[in-house]
Amino acid sequence: MTYCVAIAVDAGMVFCSDSRTNAGIDQVSTYGKMYRFGVDGQRQFVILTAGNLATTQATIAQVKRDIKERANTSLLTVETVSEAADYLGDVSLAQQEKHAKTGNSFEASFIIGGQIANSKHRIMLVYPQGNHITSSKDTPYLQIGESKYGKPILDRILTPDLNLDTCALCALVSMDSTMRSNLSVGPPIETLVYRTDTLVLNDPLRFSEDSEFLRELKRSWDQRLKDAFRQMPPFAWASSWDKSSDERNEAY
Amino acid sequence: MTYCVAIAVDAGMVFCSDSRTNAGIDQVSTYGKMYRFGVDGQRQFVILTAGNLATTQATIAQVKRDIKERANTSLLTVETVSEAADYLGDVSLAQQEKHAKTGNSFEASFIIGGQIANSKHRIMLVYPQGNHITSSKDTPYLQIGESKYGKPILDRILTPDLNLDTCALCALVSMDSTMRSNLSVGPPIETLVYRTDTLVLNDPLRFSEDSEFLRELKRSWDQRLKDAFRQMPPFAWASSWDKSSDERNEAY
Repeated sequence: MTYCVAIAVDAGMVFCSDSRTNAGIDQVSTYGKMYRFGVDGQRQFVILTAGNLATTQATIAQVKRDIKERANTSLLTVETVSEAADYLGDVSLAQQEKHAKTGNSFEASFIIGGQIANSKHRIMLVYPQGNHITSSKDTPYLQIGESKYGKPILDRILTPDLNLDTCALCALVSMDSTMRSNLSVGPPIETLVYRTDTLVLNDPLRFSEDSEFLRELKRSWDQRLKDAFRQMPPFAWASSWDKSSDERNEAY
Repeated sequence: MTYCVAIAVDAGMVFCSDSRTNAGIDQVSTYGKMYRFGVDGQRQFVILTAGNLATTQATIAQVKRDIKERANTSLLTVETVSEAADYLGDVSLAQQEKHAKTGNSFEASFIIGGQIANSKHRIMLVYPQGNHITSSKDTPYLQIGESKYGKPILDRILTPDLNLDTCALCALVSMDSTMRSNLSVGPPIETLVYRTDTLVLNDPLRFSEDSEFLRELKRSWDQRLKDAFRQMPPFAWASSWDKSSDERNEAY
């Protein structure tokens, strides 16, 4: 499985992905899932991948080929991030259909985020069916892969006016919760921060299994969550409860 | 959808369930999912249900009928909680098979927990296929339904030596995280606490949509989580990161 999250706020975008790939529990490998494409000062794109590894690898290979061979449509030619998502969806679908006659499903999902000079930075989620959605002010993030464990913290913390360091920290805490509860998501964790209108992509930070930062983040969040829980009003306080239900009690 | 969780620790058991049922987003109803069966001083069982509502209702009806008609096997006759889970699995499978010829799936899952005099209290998860698992010292809880959002807090907090009030609070926080992130799980929330060797079941606490306790718990946990997050070491600390990865950077 996989967990990838992208966050878009006024100040920029944050991308975060794990690197575990598995086909069954005993065939586990490490593959990065973050790809960067761009021309400094003109356009920058980040793609995160989830789903069938053959499909995602073939899709990324085609995206690269289209750039190299100056195809009519490529990440070089699209005029908006939404168009880029359309293009990515088409490439993904074409790759899936190549093998569809076997009757199996080779679905893959993508997040593509980026900025083209003189337009707004955006993030898009490309579904296996090729269509896409974007984020909103109320939901300034998108997830692919094993998304449920890490969703509550995103829902609580993220707002469009947050600074990028806080967003990156939130993405990593979300990733930590996911790794804690799901074996199929694991390090190295890659995190990339893009600042609005810079039109330059830095290298992603890469946190390996024994990264001191990742370990400290894990320990620190675990401790703070436990402290937070300990400070909760005691359950005994529930004596101000509504009323108990009696209907489904079967005494015999 | 549904979310139910049961916790078994040395001091006893906690059961917690929501009451939302939906078939599509515009067909939402309220059904309790917690059922109690017992003879005071002799044996007590609690059943939580998830999945196809027709199957769970038919299964519970059969369980009641078997008790009433003094069937050869019923919750009155089983000698262990594990046997009770076997019996429940058989009843559930029989109900599913009645309608299987339509080609549709009517799967349901159950948690059954209880204690029979002179034996240990146990909780069991009964799969749609009729087989079951129990909890362990390392994982002293079981979940059915929409389980992922509320799993991280259970993983972090629960240990076999916790007191029952703390377990109940943890179950409610887990329920709160689930309701926050998933529309198909909702109040009233029923919570039942069983104390080891009492062999008596109290009425469950029932927290309705406008329960002051539930609202306070939600507000309080939200605030504490945000505070905990704010106290985290800043992301800038990550400047002690390992190293950045460069391989997948495509500049063109």
